[in-house]
Amino acid sequence: MVALDRTLGANLRLCREAAELTQEQLAHLADLHPTYISLLERGQRNPGFEITVKLIGALGIAADDLYRGARWIPPDVGMEGRFAYDRDGAPADPCPSRLKLADQPKGTED
Amino acid sequence: MVALDRTLGANLRLCREAAELTQEQLAHLADLHPTYISLLERGQRNPGFEITVKLIGALGIAADDLYRGARWIPPDVGMEGRFAYDRDGAPADPCPSRLKLADQPKGTED
Repeated sequence: MVALDRTLGANLRLCREAAELTQEQLAHLADLHPTYISLLERGQRNPGFEITVKLIGALGIAADDLYRGARWIPPDVGMEGRFAYDRDGAPADPCPSRLKLADQPKGTED
Repeated sequence: MVALDRTLGANLRLCREAAELTQEQLAHLADLHPTYISLLERGQRNPGFEITVKLIGALGIAADDLYRGARWIPPDVGMEGRFAYDRDGAPADPCPSRLKLADQPKGTED
C-alpha cells in the first residue's frame, strides 16, 4: 500500500494551508464533509478520481501537487514493482502550482 | 458524478497508446489486472489514489495528464459546485508529459 499519510494527506494539508483555508472552508468549496477532509489529511481515506478532481478545483492547484512525493517503480527483471517516496526527511515544500486564490479580486468578473 | 469515460478513461487510453503499450503490458507494469485497465479506459472504475500512482509510474507521465479535461467549479453565490469539461468536441490531444519510455535505452544503467 502507498503511504497515504505522507503523500496525499500531507500534500492536501500543505495546499490547504497555502490557500489559507480551514478544513471547513475547503469542505464547503469541494462539496465534501469537514470530517472527510480531516480523514484525508491524516491518510485515512483513499479517495477516488471524482473526489480528487473536487479537491484540485477547490484549491486551484494542479493534480501533480496532490501526487508529489509518491512514485510507483514498475517491475523490472528480478524486481517486483514497488512504491518509493521522494520527500523522506526533506522539509515540507509549499504547494507549487497553487493559483493564489487569496490574491485574486473577488466579485469583479461581472 | 464526474464523467469518468471522457476524463480519466480517455486520458489513460491516450497515454497508454502514446507509450505504445497494450492493456496487458500496462497491467503488468502497474501490477493490475488487464480487465481492470479495460474497465478504467471505459470509465467504469473510479480508482483510488494508490491505483492512480501506479498508472502514473507505469506510464512515466505526470498526474496532470490523467486529470486533463475535468474541472470542478466550486460553489459561488447562488451557484452550486459543478463539474465542467474542457475538451468537449475538441480533438484528442496527445499525452504531453509522457517520458518517452520507448526512446530510452534499456538495460544500459549498470
